[in-house]
Amino acid sequence: MSAPDNATRLPGGRTARVRADVLAAVEVELAEHGYDGLSIDGVAARSGVHRTTVYRRFGSVAGLLVDLLMAAGDDDWPPADTGSLEGDLIGLNREVYDALTAEPSLTAAVIAASFRTPEAAEALTRFWEDRHDRGAAVITRAVDRGELPAGTDARRVLIAATAPVYYQLVLLRQPMTRAQADQFARDAAAGQLTRGA
Amino acid sequence: MSAPDNATRLPGGRTARVRADVLAAVEVELAEHGYDGLSIDGVAARSGVHRTTVYRRFGSVAGLLVDLLMAAGDDDWPPADTGSLEGDLIGLNREVYDALTAEPSLTAAVIAASFRTPEAAEALTRFWEDRHDRGAAVITRAVDRGELPAGTDARRVLIAATAPVYYQLVLLRQPMTRAQADQFARDAAAGQLTRGA
Repeated sequence: MSAPDNATRLPGGRTARVRADVLAAVEVELAEHGYDGLSIDGVAARSGVHRTTVYRRFGSVAGLLVDLLMAAGDDDWPPADTGSLEGDLIGLNREVYDALTAEPSLTAAVIAASFRTPEAAEALTRFWEDRHDRGAAVITRAVDRGELPAGTDARRVLIAATAPVYYQLVLLRQPMTRAQADQFARDAAAGQLTRGA
Repeated sequence: MSAPDNATRLPGGRTARVRADVLAAVEVELAEHGYDGLSIDGVAARSGVHRTTVYRRFGSVAGLLVDLLMAAGDDDWPPADTGSLEGDLIGLNREVYDALTAEPSLTAAVIAASFRTPEAAEALTRFWEDRHDRGAAVITRAVDRGELPAGTDARRVLIAATAPVYYQLVLLRQPMTRAQADQFARDAAAGQLTRGA
C-alpha cells in the first residue's frame, strides 16, 4: 500500500505537494462530476499543476483513481474502541453511512467509477481489504472480552455489519436513516453473540 | 410491474414474440459484452428483428435494459418454503449466489449497467423492491411459526441476509463459496432469532 515513485521519499518536497494538489483536485472533480466528468485536463486546471506533469505522474484517469485510493489507504485509521462488539460495529456502520450520504459522496463516486475501469476496481478491492484487516481489531477485542469465541472469522462479521449499508444506499439506491444503519450493526452483533463464548 | 404497450395483450402474438426475441438477445449481448458492448444494432442482428423495429419499440439501450428488468419482474417467483427462517434465508442467498456467479452473469452485468444509466438504476431498484415485497413471505411464515415476533421488519431481515453476498461478489469483487453464502444467511437468521418471540 505504499505510494509510487518519489512522492513518499520527499514527504515535504515539491513532488509530494504536487501529488497532494492533484489528488485534492481529483476528489472534488470526481465527487462533483462523476467518472464521466473526470479528465486529466480538468484535474490539471483545478489543481494548478501543468497537464503534462499530471500525465507524466498519473498517466490516465484510471491512474488518478488508483493513486487516490492508495493515498486514502495510507492513513492511520483504526476502528473506534467503544468497549463492546455492538458499539464497535455501530461505529463502523456510521462511518460507512456518513461517507455514502455525504453530499457529494466521494465514496459513492469511487464505487461507481470501479464499474468503469478494472484498475479502479482492483484498487478499491485492495483499499477495502486493508480496511477489513484493520477492522479485525474489533473482533479481536470482542474475543479478548469474552464476547466472541476465539477463531471467529473477523471479515465475515465486518461484512455482515457493513454490507447492508452499502447494498441499500449504493445498489438498491434507497434512502436510509442513521438509525437503520445502527440497526444493521446491532443485528450483525446479535447474530454473532448467539454463538458467543 | 406490468409490461408496456401491447406485448401483454397479445401473449401469443407477433408483438410478444418480437419482444421475447429482442430481450433474449439483450440478455446474451449484455452478459457477454457488458454495457459498453450493448447496442441496438447488435441486438437487432442477434435477434433477427429489424433494427428500426427495435428502435421503435425500445428507443435506446437504456430502454432495452428497462424492459429486460420489467420482463424479469413479470415472473411468478416466490421464495422457497423450507419450514424454517434459516432454511428460507439460505434458499434466498443461494439464488443470489447462483445468479452472481453464473458465467457469464446477467445479474452482475445489469448491476454494472445501473451505474451507467439512471433509467436502468431505477428499473433495478423497482425489480429488487418487488423481490423484497414477495420475499416478505419468508418473514410472515417465521412469524406464523412463532420464530419471530409480529411486526418484524421483513425488508431489514431480507437485506441482512442477502446484502453480504452482493457486497462481497459485486462491490468487493472477491470470490465466495456457496458455504459462505449459506453462512451469511445463518448469521442473519441468528441475529433475528435472539430477539424472537
